[in-house]
Amino acid sequence: MEIRERIDRANEEVIRRILDSQPVWVDVQKAIDVAPGMTPTLIMHSGPPIEWDRMCLVQRESVIGAVLFEGLAATPEEARERIEAGEVQLEPCHAHSSTGAMTGVTSASMAMLVVENPPFGTKGFCKVVERNLQFGVSTPEALDNLRWLAEDLGPALGEAVRRLGGLELKPIIGRALHMGDECHNRNVAATMLVLQQIAPDLVEAVEPSRLRRVMEYFQEIDQAFLGLAMAAGKSIGDAAQGVADSSVVTAMARNGVEFGIRVSGLGDGWFTGEAQEIEGAFLPGLSSADATRDIGDSTITETIGLGGMAMANALTASAIAGGRAEDAIRRVRENMEITAGRSRSFTLPVLDFQGTPVGIDVRKVVETGILPVMLTGIASNKPGGGRIGGGVARPPMAPFVQAVKALAERVGASA
Amino acid sequence: MEIRERIDRANEEVIRRILDSQPVWVDVQKAIDVAPGMTPTLIMHSGPPIEWDRMCLVQRESVIGAVLFEGLAATPEEARERIEAGEVQLEPCHAHSSTGAMTGVTSASMAMLVVENPPFGTKGFCKVVERNLQFGVSTPEALDNLRWLAEDLGPALGEAVRRLGGLELKPIIGRALHMGDECHNRNVAATMLVLQQIAPDLVEAVEPSRLRRVMEYFQEIDQAFLGLAMAAGKSIGDAAQGVADSSVVTAMARNGVEFGIRVSGLGDGWFTGEAQEIEGAFLPGLSSADATRDIGDSTITETIGLGGMAMANALTASAIAGGRAEDAIRRVRENMEITAGRSRSFTLPVLDFQGTPVGIDVRKVVETGILPVMLTGIASNKPGGGRIGGGVARPPMAPFVQAVKALAERVGASA
Repeated sequence: MEIRERIDRANEEVIRRILDSQPVWVDVQKAIDVAPGMTPTLIMHSGPPIEWDRMCLVQRESVIGAVLFEGLAATPEEARERIEAGEVQLEPCHAHSSTGAMTGVTSASMAMLVVENPPFGTKGFCKVVERNLQFGVSTPEALDNLRWLAEDLGPALGEAVRRLGGLELKPIIGRALHMGDECHNRNVAATMLVLQQIAPDLVEAVEPSRLRRVMEYFQEIDQAFLGLAMAAGKSIGDAAQGVADSSVVTAMARNGVEFGIRVSGLGDGWFTGEAQEIEGAFLPGLSSADATRDIGDSTITETIGLGGMAMANALTASAIAGGRAEDAIRRVRENMEITAGRSRSFTLPVLDFQGTPVGIDVRKVVETGILPVMLTGIASNKPGGGRIGGGVARPPMAPFVQAVKALAERVGASA
Repeated sequence: MEIRERIDRANEEVIRRILDSQPVWVDVQKAIDVAPGMTPTLIMHSGPPIEWDRMCLVQRESVIGAVLFEGLAATPEEARERIEAGEVQLEPCHAHSSTGAMTGVTSASMAMLVVENPPFGTKGFCKVVERNLQFGVSTPEALDNLRWLAEDLGPALGEAVRRLGGLELKPIIGRALHMGDECHNRNVAATMLVLQQIAPDLVEAVEPSRLRRVMEYFQEIDQAFLGLAMAAGKSIGDAAQGVADSSVVTAMARNGVEFGIRVSGLGDGWFTGEAQEIEGAFLPGLSSADATRDIGDSTITETIGLGGMAMANALTASAIAGGRAEDAIRRVRENMEITAGRSRSFTLPVLDFQGTPVGIDVRKVVETGILPVMLTGIASNKPGGGRIGGGVARPPMAPFVQAVKALAERVGASA
């Protein structure tokens, strides 16, 4: 068989696995109780592996916040010492079946969304969504909120979804995609669909006096669903990982310094390049000079046909980043040229319900020069600066070129 | 001043009133306690005035159901006798600041959504949405459900929205329009936005044991918001009514036999023509031969820039009725040719956030031959047959021609 044909066939298997995946939200538990390999002194972060010294400032600030949150240190200074002494360990979320938005910092006691993908036996985890620590804000209020998420909201959501017997996520995402979401930068509809689906069980699972605050969470955090989209994405990406000869991307992730991809047929290592600046809309008076470069594991959504792959469905989000409707539609069409398949579950009304592009093929990226469009939030580059905008990121070309070379060597060697 | 100019100037005032309206959902009460002129023996129905003998079968069936519901008769036969004897009176919803979906049948004890429009002091009412009686189903279960709506859900929603201090509806509709709704045939997003907004108060307003059932309502009736869209539309349409010389439509309504319009400068009478058949999607095995003709007051939504005027936002709904994305966009563009203004609050993402067409000008309808597109549900023509589909209706041309003639006479006479 020709090399091209072998790769094509492998990619068909990857696409089959992506399309046949059925992610189900089943629970909320503390990270230590569910994430494989989690330990009390391990802090997970977004993106490819990175050492403390090379981390961007906001990711460091989040790590310090997590060390304090876990009671591993009493002051930020002490936290830094523990980290530098190796008493606290740093590893990527992706190494623990997990994903983390923005800085992605996640520690043992934090509330994790648990998603299972029964057809393939994989799982995906992601922290219950908040809007402070993930953007490098680790004030006492931010840590108090993490405690409320872990001790109050998390158990309530967990109990509700267990009573419900789990919630299938592809149908929710499919509906949300027809309601203005792309399920990366915009998750308003999906968040409300989840509320609608779990509300009858939620009101029975929570004692009345604590219920108002739980309901307010769904008003305040309209990105709440992103955590489920990411956990679902991880459970699908891992199901698609490890198909020999495949050139399809199974994860994209960034840590603010490096952007990296994993490719199904090329093992669990990362191909990396420099994290890029974001084109987007900033809070008044701020610009990309104030921003951390591209950061977070949320680009797992683009690997399964969401986010930038579905941005023509979310023209409100696209417009905020400065684009016209036709630009968003054009970008999705471009992404169809670099992908190996089309989603059955996620469709594009404005393109008469064609499936979203799924399965980025590193060969096609290099051949066409078209880089996948990724939607993203923008973090300040100053610890405590928080979220300063949202926009569109393009990854660097280097990792795709490296991956194509690696594949050529590997497939060539076994041909 | 030239006649044309006088009409244009009057229409500007009508558009100003429509755009400056601020409908607020303030309460839920029984019809007898809020609808002007309501009496214990009055049954309201949708569309222009119509006598019992000329009513279509499903509207009659709904009226019988309402008579039984009110305890004005013990059997359907007795109900018929009461109606024929004039002991029960029939009048249009529109004569009582109200609107009713499909058959529109509403009686004294039913739960009514209460909407106020403070800038103009108008009010609009619409029954809490259910899916039986309004489609001509008056089984004991349907009447039991009406009782639950009146005694349980209605008071719960009323208490929640009072605690909230009212809910402004234009912002909700504006957001829902960016989430796949057009707020006539499709209200999924708006319904969930309401749930999101009232949930914290709702969980405190309802005793815990009754809360599950209330939450389930928001799962079962994803058209729940239509009642608020209609009540809002009525409060706006009545604010726009009565501007001398204006050629803008302030209400469109159908009773399954006749389609009628009210025009701002032409008094409170109706210009009517034959209700049309619906082009649309029917349940398997059914067709327009099984359908009641165009029926319901829900076309009040089209008079304020929703429904067909916004159908390019609701491609999922449009596709069900058989159209492609470009057809929906074309139809909205056509409607821009027959309207006097553009909404500020309701915009079209796919047309780069242009406002939806607002204020149907009977002159332009007659000049261009373009009839306003109206989205609609489809009722069986057999009592008890229920909802059998949804689609797109075009009104007859006759009422628009009559209105233009009447306006010419009236304006000419006073010129």
